[in-house]
Amino acid sequence: MSGNTLGKVFQLTTFGESHGAVVGGVIDGVPAGLVVDLEQVQAELDRRKPGQSAITTDRKEEDKVVFISGIIDNDEGKTVCTGTPIAFQIRNRDTKSADYSNLTTSFRPSHADFTYSGKYGIRDARGGGRSSARETVSRVVAGAIAQQLIKTTDGIEISAYVDRVHEISTPFPPAFFERNLIDSNIVRCPSDEIASRMIARIEEVKKAGDSVGGSIVLVARNMPLGLGEPVFDKLNAELAKALMSLPATKGIEIGSGFSGTLMKGSEHNDEFQANEQGEVSTTTNRSGGIQGGISNGEDLVIRIGFKPVSTIKKPQNTVDSEGNNIVLEMKGRHDPCVLPRAVPIVEAMVALVLADHTLRNRTTQI
Amino acid sequence: MSGNTLGKVFQLTTFGESHGAVVGGVIDGVPAGLVVDLEQVQAELDRRKPGQSAITTDRKEEDKVVFISGIIDNDEGKTVCTGTPIAFQIRNRDTKSADYSNLTTSFRPSHADFTYSGKYGIRDARGGGRSSARETVSRVVAGAIAQQLIKTTDGIEISAYVDRVHEISTPFPPAFFERNLIDSNIVRCPSDEIASRMIARIEEVKKAGDSVGGSIVLVARNMPLGLGEPVFDKLNAELAKALMSLPATKGIEIGSGFSGTLMKGSEHNDEFQANEQGEVSTTTNRSGGIQGGISNGEDLVIRIGFKPVSTIKKPQNTVDSEGNNIVLEMKGRHDPCVLPRAVPIVEAMVALVLADHTLRNRTTQI
Amino acid sequence: MSGNTLGKVFQLTTFGESHGAVVGGVIDGVPAGLVVDLEQVQAELDRRKPGQSAITTDRKEEDKVVFISGIIDNDEGKTVCTGTPIAFQIRNRDTKSADYSNLTTSFRPSHADFTYSGKYGIRDARGGGRSSARETVSRVVAGAIAQQLIKTTDGIEISAYVDRVHEISTPFPPAFFERNLIDSNIVRCPSDEIASRMIARIEEVKKAGDSVGGSIVLVARNMPLGLGEPVFDKLNAELAKALMSLPATKGIEIGSGFSGTLMKGSEHNDEFQANEQGEVSTTTNRSGGIQGGISNGEDLVIRIGFKPVSTIKKPQNTVDSEGNNIVLEMKGRHDPCVLPRAVPIVEAMVALVLADHTLRNRTTQI
Amino acid sequence: MSGNTLGKVFQLTTFGESHGAVVGGVIDGVPAGLVVDLEQVQAELDRRKPGQSAITTDRKEEDKVVFISGIIDNDEGKTVCTGTPIAFQIRNRDTKSADYSNLTTSFRPSHADFTYSGKYGIRDARGGGRSSARETVSRVVAGAIAQQLIKTTDGIEISAYVDRVHEISTPFPPAFFERNLIDSNIVRCPSDEIASRMIARIEEVKKAGDSVGGSIVLVARNMPLGLGEPVFDKLNAELAKALMSLPATKGIEIGSGFSGTLMKGSEHNDEFQANEQGEVSTTTNRSGGIQGGISNGEDLVIRIGFKPVSTIKKPQNTVDSEGNNIVLEMKGRHDPCVLPRAVPIVEAMVALVLADHTLRNRTTQI
Repeated sequence: MSGNTLGKVFQLTTFGESHGAVVGGVIDGVPAGLVVDLEQVQAELDRRKPGQSAITTDRKEEDKVVFISGIIDNDEGKTVCTGTPIAFQIRNRDTKSADYSNLTTSFRPSHADFTYSGKYGIRDARGGGRSSARETVSRVVAGAIAQQLIKTTDGIEISAYVDRVHEISTPFPPAFFERNLIDSNIVRCPSDEIASRMIARIEEVKKAGDSVGGSIVLVARNMPLGLGEPVFDKLNAELAKALMSLPATKGIEIGSGFSGTLMKGSEHNDEFQANEQGEVSTTTNRSGGIQGGISNGEDLVIRIGFKPVSTIKKPQNTVDSEGNNIVLEMKGRHDPCVLPRAVPIVEAMVALVLADHTLRNRTTQI
Repeated sequence: MSGNTLGKVFQLTTFGESHGAVVGGVIDGVPAGLVVDLEQVQAELDRRKPGQSAITTDRKEEDKVVFISGIIDNDEGKTVCTGTPIAFQIRNRDTKSADYSNLTTSFRPSHADFTYSGKYGIRDARGGGRSSARETVSRVVAGAIAQQLIKTTDGIEISAYVDRVHEISTPFPPAFFERNLIDSNIVRCPSDEIASRMIARIEEVKKAGDSVGGSIVLVARNMPLGLGEPVFDKLNAELAKALMSLPATKGIEIGSGFSGTLMKGSEHNDEFQANEQGEVSTTTNRSGGIQGGISNGEDLVIRIGFKPVSTIKKPQNTVDSEGNNIVLEMKGRHDPCVLPRAVPIVEAMVALVLADHTLRNRTTQI
Repeated sequence: MSGNTLGKVFQLTTFGESHGAVVGGVIDGVPAGLVVDLEQVQAELDRRKPGQSAITTDRKEEDKVVFISGIIDNDEGKTVCTGTPIAFQIRNRDTKSADYSNLTTSFRPSHADFTYSGKYGIRDARGGGRSSARETVSRVVAGAIAQQLIKTTDGIEISAYVDRVHEISTPFPPAFFERNLIDSNIVRCPSDEIASRMIARIEEVKKAGDSVGGSIVLVARNMPLGLGEPVFDKLNAELAKALMSLPATKGIEIGSGFSGTLMKGSEHNDEFQANEQGEVSTTTNRSGGIQGGISNGEDLVIRIGFKPVSTIKKPQNTVDSEGNNIVLEMKGRHDPCVLPRAVPIVEAMVALVLADHTLRNRTTQI
Repeated sequence: MSGNTLGKVFQLTTFGESHGAVVGGVIDGVPAGLVVDLEQVQAELDRRKPGQSAITTDRKEEDKVVFISGIIDNDEGKTVCTGTPIAFQIRNRDTKSADYSNLTTSFRPSHADFTYSGKYGIRDARGGGRSSARETVSRVVAGAIAQQLIKTTDGIEISAYVDRVHEISTPFPPAFFERNLIDSNIVRCPSDEIASRMIARIEEVKKAGDSVGGSIVLVARNMPLGLGEPVFDKLNAELAKALMSLPATKGIEIGSGFSGTLMKGSEHNDEFQANEQGEVSTTTNRSGGIQGGISNGEDLVIRIGFKPVSTIKKPQNTVDSEGNNIVLEMKGRHDPCVLPRAVPIVEAMVALVLADHTLRNRTTQI
C-alpha cells in the first residue's frame, strides 16, 4: 500500500535510495521455465546508464546488476526462472553526497524535497534519497525481464524513441523503429537529421546551466488481442499509471491523443476490415491499439511528455526548512534533458504492464 | 484482479451491465462515523443523467440510487456510515435492446465489441453490456461519498468544467470555478459566451449524425500536503489511471502538461516562498499541485482529453462476427458529445483517488 | 483492506447486515464461459437455511438468491458466466428487530457487540448487524459457483460432515462421503447411529436454553497436483484463514492435525510409491493432501472446531454501554448447535480457496 | 499473487533460496519516524539460529542481518525508519550442497520436493531451495521490527514458549511468561522440570535418527481493543493464515481451541464485568482475546501444533523423478525437533499480523 510495488501477477517491488549502498528490487510472479538472457538485461541498463554521452549527467555508475535469487542454470546450460522471487541489486558507486550538503535544510524548486519532508517528517536528503530518478534503474532490470517474457509468449516487441526535444519534433507519425536505428545517435531519435538538431539544443541549454523537456513515442507491435481488464484496469489506464509514475512526466496520450479530440467521430473511428482469411484488422489506428480498455491486436501507440529537469545550475529563489526565503545554487551533476536516458525506462514500464496483463489474461476464460 | 475494483483503502467495486436490471456497486473502507448527505449524492447523479438537456442522449433514466447497506440513521437523526460495506443500486429502465439487435453479430468501429468478443469469447451485446458508459453511474455515486469524505477531513473541494469542445476553447488558464457557475449552462463551461458557441457546435454535429470531443479541466482546492505514495503510486500516476479508465479518454495532463514540456527548467520550476508565518507556498503552479508524486498543498490541476463519441448515425464500414465486411448503420440513442455529462464523472474519479490517498496517508508516520 | 473481500483472482466481496433489507455479494474473476447450474446454487442455500429442522433456529428465511449481473443465457439455452462481476442478493424477511431492542445498549457475552462498538464507535445492533452469521449466506452462494468451477476444471469434489457434537464423535477416520448419505439425517453425520445420539444431545441442550459445539471434517477428492503458493499463501494457510473467518471457529487441523504432533517422523512421513505407469501417490495421507503448502494430488483433509453458540437463553452477567454491570436475558431465535448448518458453509469456504488457487496456478509456468 | 508477500499495510516480501548466496526481504509500510533497535533484531535472529544448542541442527550460520535501505541515523543519533522500503539480507554460509546431490532426482517423503517439481516443472533442489525453512529467517527480521512497532504504538508484548514436545506437556494453562524465563533453557519451556524431560526426549530421538513434534503457546498482552477486520480478515483468520504458513504446522487453536468445543455455551461464554471506573473486561478468556474477529483487549492466546520434522536419517521408501520406487537415506543436518527454534518464528508471525492490523485500524473511524 506504500506504493513501492507495481503489478498484480508480474509484480515488481523496488528498494534503495540514491546515495545508499545499493538499489534493487524483487520481481515476483515470473513464470517458471522462462529462459532469460541476462546479458540483454545488462544491455538495457547500459542504455539507461549515466555518463553514457556528452548530453547526459557526468555521474559515473558502472550499473552492473547482480541477480540474487530465482534464476538458475539448468542442465542444458540455459538460464531459467524457477518461479521463485527474482531479487537483484545494483551497487551505487559515485555518490558525491557532499554536493547535497545544503539540501538537508533547503527545498529545491519543483523537486520532491518539500513534499517528502512534509509527508514523512524525516528525509534522506542525499541525492534525493528515494525520490531520486536513480530508483528507475530497478524498473529497467525488471522491464528487461518483462520484455523477454512477452516476446516469448506472444512475440510482442516494444520500441520507444525521442520524438521531440523542446520544440524540435519529428515530422512523421508514430511508427515502430528498430532499436539499432534509434540507438544510432545519442539522443535516440530515429531521424539523424532531427537528432542533430536536438543534440545541439541540449548542448546549448547544458552550457547555459538550464534544462529542456520534450516527448517520447512508444510503439509495440505483435500485440495480441485481449490484454487489459474492463472498467478500472483498462490497458490504457494501467499504462497511464505506469508511465505517469516516472519522474518528470507531465502528460500521456494514447493513439491519436489530444489531437484526436479535435476530430469528429466520423473522422476518428477506426473502421474494421476482414481479409480473405476472415482476419480482422482496422484500416486506421487512432485508437492506438486499445478499444474499450482492451488491446485489439493493432500496434500500441503512446506519447509521453517530460518536463525540463528541475535541477538546474542557475540560482533560484526558494525556502529552507526553517521557513526562511533563500537563494539556492546547486552543484550536483544532472542531465540537461532526461529524454535520451528515459527511452529504455519508458520501454520498461510498458513491458511491465504488458507482462502483468499477459499473465492476468490467462484466467479470463474457462 | 479482474479490474472491477478501484482503490486500496477506500475501495469501489462495480457491477452490472447497460441493459441488465440494475447497475450498482459496493464501497468498502469508508470510515465509520462519516455523516453523509444522500441528497447530495443524488444531485451528482442528476448532473450525469441522460436526457438532461438538448445536447445529450434521449435515453431516459430516472437514475435513483438506492442504498442497501452500510448506512444508518443514528439517534441524532443523522445519516452515518457504519464502517461496513456500502452497497447501492440504480435501476435500468429505458433499455431499448431492440436497437442493438444487429450488434450481436457486428462490431461497431472504435467500440469494445470486437475486443470483448475476442477476450471473453462471449458477450452481452445489449447496449454494450459491461463496456457501456452506463457503468460510470456507479462511479458517480461512490465519488459523491468520496467528495463528502475529503471535504470533511481536509476541506478539499473539487470542481471540473468543459474547457474545450472540438476546437472551441476557453481563453483563460485553469482555475477553480464554483459549481453553480459551471452548471449555469448545459455544456458546463464557466464562460457563457464560450458555452453558447460550444452548444451550437454540438447541436450542429448532432444534426449531422456525427459527434465531437474536447477536453475537461479539473481543479481541486484546499489540498493538504502529503497525499500520494512514492515510486509507483504517485498521486499523479493514480489520478492518470483513474481518469484514463473512463470511456473515451485519449490524454491526461498534470499541471503545465504538454505545453510545459516546451519550456526550459528555469522557466518551468515553481519557486518556493515563505510568508511571515513561515508558511511555504509556490509562486507559480506548473507542477499542478504535485511534486515527486505527492501533493504540495497547491491547487491540483488536471486536463483530460475525450475523443468524439464512437457511436454515430452515419453508415460505417466494419465486419461481422463471421468475418464478413459489412456496412453498419446504428440507431441507438447516444450523446453527440460526452463532455457535459462527463464533468461529474471526472470529479468523481478524482475524489475516489483523493479519498483513498487521504486514508492511506494515515499510516505514513508513527 | 476492510476485510470484506476474499481471494485474489476468484474474488468474493460481501455486503449487508442481518436485519437490513438484503444481504449479498459480488463475485469477480469467474472465467467467462463457465456453465453454471443456478438450481444447484439454490440447493446449497437450502442446506444452510434457518428453520430447516427441529434442531436449528426457528427464524424463517426463504433465502432465495437473485442474480443481478454477470450471467446470461446463451444461444444454446445454457446459463453461462460472461466474465463480468456476478452480483447477487438474498432478501432478509423474518427480521424481528424487537428481539434486539435491549442489545443496543448491552454487550452479549462472547459476541461481537463489545468489539464492534469499540472498533467503530457506532453499531447496527439489530441482529448483530454485519457481525451476524447471516452474512455467511453470501459465502454459500459464491462457494456454490466455486464448486462448479473446480468440478469443471479438475473434477474436484468437496464433502463435509459433522464428525463430533459435544463429545459424541464418529469412530472412523476422515473419509469422503457422498452428499446424499450425509444429508440423510438432519445433523449431517454419515453414521445414522451416531447422528441419532448427536440429535438427542442437541435437543437436550436446546430444551435447557443452552448450546453445544463440536467439529466438522471436510474431504476433497480428485485434487490436482500443484495448488497453493509457496511461503505465505500456502494452500493450508489460505484454507486456515478462510475457515477461521467463519463465526464460532476455534481450531483448524490439516491432515493428521494435533494427533500427528504426537508421532515421530518415521511414523508420520507419507512415503511415496509409483505404480506401473509411473504415477506417484503416497501410501498414507497424514499430510492431508498438502506438502510444502502445495496440493500433492491426495485427498484434502481438514477438521474445524466450532465453539458452542454464544447466544443462550440462560441469564448471563454482562455490562451495558454505560459501563454498568447487568444481567442479560436474550429472546432471539438461535441455533442450539451451528454444526448442521455449518456443513455447506465449510464446503463453500474450501471451494472459494480452491477456485482461487486453481486460477492462480495458471500463471505458474511459462 | 505468487505468495511471497504478507500483509496489506505492513508488508513483508521475502526472497532467496536455502543454498543461494543470500536470503532476505523487503519490509514496506513501516511508519516513518519509528525508532528501531537493530541489536534487538539481531538478538531475535540469534534465537532462531541453527547450531545454537545440542538439540538443534549442526548447520552453522552466522546469520548476521544487514540492512540495505529505509533506515538512517538521525541527528540525535537514533536509528529511525524513513518510510521507504526496508530491505535486508542474511548471507548463507554453511551450504553443503553435496548433501543434496541425490535429491535432484528423488522425492523426500512429506517434503515439498514432489509438489514443487509438479507445480513448477523445475526445481532448485539444493537444500530444498525456496521451500526450505531457511526462508523463515527473513520472517524473524521483519517480525522483530513489527514487535518494536506495536510495542511503541500500544505497548503490546508477545511471548511464546514450547508447551509440549511429543506427549511431554506443560501442566498449566497458557499464560504470559517473560522471555528470560523462557530462554533459560534450550528447549524454551518456562518450566525447567518439564524442559529437562523434553530435552531428554529430543536427544533420544536424535540419537535414533528420528524426529518429534509438539506444540507452542503464544500469549500477547497489552492488546488494544479493535484490531482485526470483520468478515474475511478477522484477526483470528489472519493469525491462522500467518501461522499455518510456517513449515510443519498441522493445527491452530485460538483461546479455548478444540477443548472449548467440548463445552456448553453457558460454560464457554466469557462474561463481561465493569470495574468502578467503568472499564470493561471479561472474567474468563476462552475467546483468547478475540470476539467477532476483533481483539477485545484481553490477552491473545494461541496454540500451534508442529509435526515431527520430515527429514530423518532412517531409510525410507520413496520414488525418484523417473517414477522408480527407491529407498532413500538422507545425510543433511537437520533439527530433530523444530520447536525450540520455532519460538521466535511464531512470535514474528504474530507480530507481523498485529503490526499490519494496528496500521489498518487507523482508517476505521472518521
